[in-house]
Amino acid sequence: MKYSETIERLMLEFGKLPGIGARSAERLAFHILKNPTEQAMSLAKAIHDVKTRIHPCRECFNIAEAELCAVCADERRDHSLICVVEQPKDLLAIESTGSYQGVYHVLMGQIAPLEGVDADDLTIDALVDRVKQVRPTEIILATNPTVSGDATALHIASLIEPMGVRITRLARGLPSGGQIEYAGKSILSDAINERRTVKD
Amino acid sequence: MKYSETIERLMLEFGKLPGIGARSAERLAFHILKNPTEQAMSLAKAIHDVKTRIHPCRECFNIAEAELCAVCADERRDHSLICVVEQPKDLLAIESTGSYQGVYHVLMGQIAPLEGVDADDLTIDALVDRVKQVRPTEIILATNPTVSGDATALHIASLIEPMGVRITRLARGLPSGGQIEYAGKSILSDAINERRTVKD
Repeated sequence: MKYSETIERLMLEFGKLPGIGARSAERLAFHILKNPTEQAMSLAKAIHDVKTRIHPCRECFNIAEAELCAVCADERRDHSLICVVEQPKDLLAIESTGSYQGVYHVLMGQIAPLEGVDADDLTIDALVDRVKQVRPTEIILATNPTVSGDATALHIASLIEPMGVRITRLARGLPSGGQIEYAGKSILSDAINERRTVKD
Repeated sequence: MKYSETIERLMLEFGKLPGIGARSAERLAFHILKNPTEQAMSLAKAIHDVKTRIHPCRECFNIAEAELCAVCADERRDHSLICVVEQPKDLLAIESTGSYQGVYHVLMGQIAPLEGVDADDLTIDALVDRVKQVRPTEIILATNPTVSGDATALHIASLIEPMGVRITRLARGLPSGGQIEYAGKSILSDAINERRTVKD
């Protein structure tokens, strides 16, 4: 014998989520069963709303509830400065520093042939079109400092360079607050190669 | 800046589930955002269905989609033998053995004053009424072999004993397949106290 069909189905659906195994799915399903209907319905509605209300920003592919995301819709931002990030979470991380006033372009991933993600699966074509139209003064490539991230950045740079736009990338070196004795080889190499004069 | 309000709300709702922290809630919300609408809607619908279709069995408080659960509705079961369990999961565990042919009564928890669960919060009153009406030949108390489980069983036994029904509890001893050298003191005490003659 099994549980009732309805609760089995909820377990199955929970089990499809990342990081939720069979046991967790069972616990979650029973939590839903036990707890007030109102709470469960709020969750169901929140899932429904995310899929119906949220879509990519027409301009930069960031998460948006209107046609433009909050950043692109903000006229006080510098629209001639475009920071290219892999995903909306990266955008948010940069926003949280408060030290960037330009706009963004969200790639929706990184080029990773082994995982079946080609350049065509990302929003690179849209970026090239945007650069052609907007003619920004600078493009900051803010992909992750990893092999795939670097490869993605290089690919984009090769497409945009012919347009004569200034292309930069994020600085690489010691992480602020870290300790040299624990820094890996590649971090130290970066820190040495990209060293700066103390007086400027 | 934050994510959009809709996705923040989904993170909040996921975060209310047991074992889901802030980081997991964020990951789950982005998973919902990225993946096909159909999958997300299946989850939303499964949650909705569990809260609308499932309710406690009129007779035993097991999970049921009809008025009676599958066990109570089965006329081939022995309705004069009632096994009292704490929760539907315990019922399922016993069912999976295939060695029980009676019916059940689900308490929906155990008496745990420290967690604010009194006897009144469980389905004990309903059990007493049921015993009065059905006059079963035997009640098996299958609460967990823990302090709270034992206390719950003792409380129920004290209420039912005056009715002259035979009351039993599950056997306690060495777990089959376990090893004596790793068995705890209380397990070994039980095993010694409840020892059986080899020839019977």
